[in-house]
Amino acid sequence: MNRYEKMTEEELKADYQQTMARFEALKSQNLRLNMSRGKPGSDQLDLSDGLLKILTEPKDCYFEGEDARNYGMLDGVPDCRKLFSELLGVSESEILVGGNSSLSLMYDLISKAYTHGLLKSETPWGKLDKIKFLCPSPGYDRHFLVTESFGAELITIPMRDHGPDMDMIEEYVKDPLIKGVWCVPKYSNPEGIIFSDEVIARFADLKPAAPDFVIIWDNAYCVHEFEGDFVPFKNILEECRRAGNPDMVFEFASTSKITYPGAGVAVMASSEDNIAYMKKLIGVQIICYDKVNQLRHARFLKDKKGVLELMKKHAVILKPKFDMVFSCLDREIRELGIASWKKPKGGYFISLDTEPGCAKRALSLAKEAGVVMTEAGATFPYGKDPEDRNIRIAPTYPPVDELEKAMDVLCICLKLAAMEKAMNRKRH
Amino acid sequence: MNRYEKMTEEELKADYQQTMARFEALKSQNLRLNMSRGKPGSDQLDLSDGLLKILTEPKDCYFEGEDARNYGMLDGVPDCRKLFSELLGVSESEILVGGNSSLSLMYDLISKAYTHGLLKSETPWGKLDKIKFLCPSPGYDRHFLVTESFGAELITIPMRDHGPDMDMIEEYVKDPLIKGVWCVPKYSNPEGIIFSDEVIARFADLKPAAPDFVIIWDNAYCVHEFEGDFVPFKNILEECRRAGNPDMVFEFASTSKITYPGAGVAVMASSEDNIAYMKKLIGVQIICYDKVNQLRHARFLKDKKGVLELMKKHAVILKPKFDMVFSCLDREIRELGIASWKKPKGGYFISLDTEPGCAKRALSLAKEAGVVMTEAGATFPYGKDPEDRNIRIAPTYPPVDELEKAMDVLCICLKLAAMEKAMNRKRH
Repeated sequence: MNRYEKMTEEELKADYQQTMARFEALKSQNLRLNMSRGKPGSDQLDLSDGLLKILTEPKDCYFEGEDARNYGMLDGVPDCRKLFSELLGVSESEILVGGNSSLSLMYDLISKAYTHGLLKSETPWGKLDKIKFLCPSPGYDRHFLVTESFGAELITIPMRDHGPDMDMIEEYVKDPLIKGVWCVPKYSNPEGIIFSDEVIARFADLKPAAPDFVIIWDNAYCVHEFEGDFVPFKNILEECRRAGNPDMVFEFASTSKITYPGAGVAVMASSEDNIAYMKKLIGVQIICYDKVNQLRHARFLKDKKGVLELMKKHAVILKPKFDMVFSCLDREIRELGIASWKKPKGGYFISLDTEPGCAKRALSLAKEAGVVMTEAGATFPYGKDPEDRNIRIAPTYPPVDELEKAMDVLCICLKLAAMEKAMNRKRH
Repeated sequence: MNRYEKMTEEELKADYQQTMARFEALKSQNLRLNMSRGKPGSDQLDLSDGLLKILTEPKDCYFEGEDARNYGMLDGVPDCRKLFSELLGVSESEILVGGNSSLSLMYDLISKAYTHGLLKSETPWGKLDKIKFLCPSPGYDRHFLVTESFGAELITIPMRDHGPDMDMIEEYVKDPLIKGVWCVPKYSNPEGIIFSDEVIARFADLKPAAPDFVIIWDNAYCVHEFEGDFVPFKNILEECRRAGNPDMVFEFASTSKITYPGAGVAVMASSEDNIAYMKKLIGVQIICYDKVNQLRHARFLKDKKGVLELMKKHAVILKPKFDMVFSCLDREIRELGIASWKKPKGGYFISLDTEPGCAKRALSLAKEAGVVMTEAGATFPYGKDPEDRNIRIAPTYPPVDELEKAMDVLCICLKLAAMEKAMNRKRH
């Protein structure tokens, strides 16, 4: 029982009126605050000023006798492949460097699975009556939407403390209609969970019935610690190779939250056979990605050491924001027992679980008071949270003082929603 | 009858031996020359130095209160949309500015037609047993390959002096399986033809049986005159609107041959309804294209006037190259009557038609002598030229002196192939 459920009806009513008054007062301030998306703040973007200055003369555009400005080299600038190979711990021959969007590379993978099939497909997915996709949830709405838009049936897999429920996944993959699974394995979106070595090994050891089952390993936050040092992480390509499933995984990453979200560089890593197969398909789609921007990134970031140094600077900006969220929640919510959350040390989000049935109401109140959050339900397939309890907080974009105000509003809304639920219960 | 066919067997034999001796002499020079792809030369790329210097401070990245470095604005930077709207003569609301590749935008259009259907599709193409696509030929190999890779049946439409054979197209589109047509309407690839106003009007007036028939109007060379002033060109969107077919066309263009082939900006233009529909689909694929590069382009190129000034500088570099090809052909080939060609005033190619059955042989000889050309047949669907006569010359990349050498080789190879054919005929 949470604090409100233990109150008498009168106590509850009094507290509700008082809290509602505070809510109305905040509302009258006509706030316009946004904690909806995982966007870096401008001060973070300013950390990569050097990117704009590193390549200003034609002569800067040459590498190994090639001219980055011209056509050619579909798999990307070698120095950029090298950089990502260091970051992900995979070999350079397992890498294709793309354009500014890893989401786009993932979409293309799924799209080609539908129209052409993957390396091990017996039939392109689009020629099958139906396919299904596993969606560990809460998860990333844009992932789920990709597979939804192609008509796949989305299956919710609960997240546990160290990654998705692997018992369920192992069971599901016995169905040949199950074609893949979405993962954000390090600092998962939104909970900030790091998949344990055991979970990773169980992924690699999967024995799916579908020969073209694919693990989409979106390592979006591979170097994104905002507290403490870089946390080493298993190389999923190697794990899958060890398990005899070398072609079962595609890993993705990007510099969207290292340099610029809109003008970074994305990467796809997989077995050499998968990369060769995808290059054949992608070669029909594009002559080459933007090699000038790849070269800028390789020269500006230099190597893993250079990236980790830059990430430390991001951490200096990000940690106070996460701390602000944690301290507001600790102060206002913890002892009420009306919500629970984890305290990740990296990534871009905090995931909050309210009492069942309270998330939508809390966020609709927040919206009334001018605080925009990721829509309730967004972290689940089809945008529907079966228990209506998960809220994703994206604290990176607003400055700390705005964030504090936004959290004030959110905490009050959480309380009001929980009180309304408790009052309703007492009434029935 | 060409000159060789008029010769006696002895004359022919003597000429062949003499020409073969010159060929062997050239071969022994171990040349490594390339006239295979429509790549600008480095001196052309140097014309856009300013692009590398125009945006070097964070403050340069802001426009209308938005930060180009961050996420957002799927349809592109307004100034860049404005620039393309001027270049193509369409309205800004009819434009989506993309990444560095117009081929990629075209591929995405076809891909989405297969998986999701276009705005007016009754069924996604991938769910139909078969579809067919019209390919005016000689044409652009990468266009044909996109539709081929999705399994469409490619139908060759002959090119006439002012565009594709419209009688045939009007007849073909009565078949509901015909879903579209590839066009390069201005300085067509490879012949350099400008579609006449009549041809354009007949395109707009098409009454296809398929409600989702699509004209892919790849205006790749919209401002690419290398001789004379900019040639105004009909706005196909307006023509289609006038004809009551507002949603039948998608136009594409890019700065690949204005600034950088590998790091330019591409654009898609169509009716507002089509753009809205495509944005909904593309919004699942990507959060935004590279707005920093879009902003660079808008600021560097400024407006249509700025672009046309830059194109004049390209022309200064390109015209001597085209002139060199024309003068070699005029001097060596014209009076022999063994090949014919047009003399375009813009674009990136010269198209040569040999005697039937001579193109492959001529190019294989050229390759022996170290001159790489676009493969024979590449300008036709499935890479098969039914008469084996079309050769695409791409004169833009090599410096003039190398080009002269390459043309020497090519002319000798054209002669040898024609003589071999004449000798064979006399023998049988």
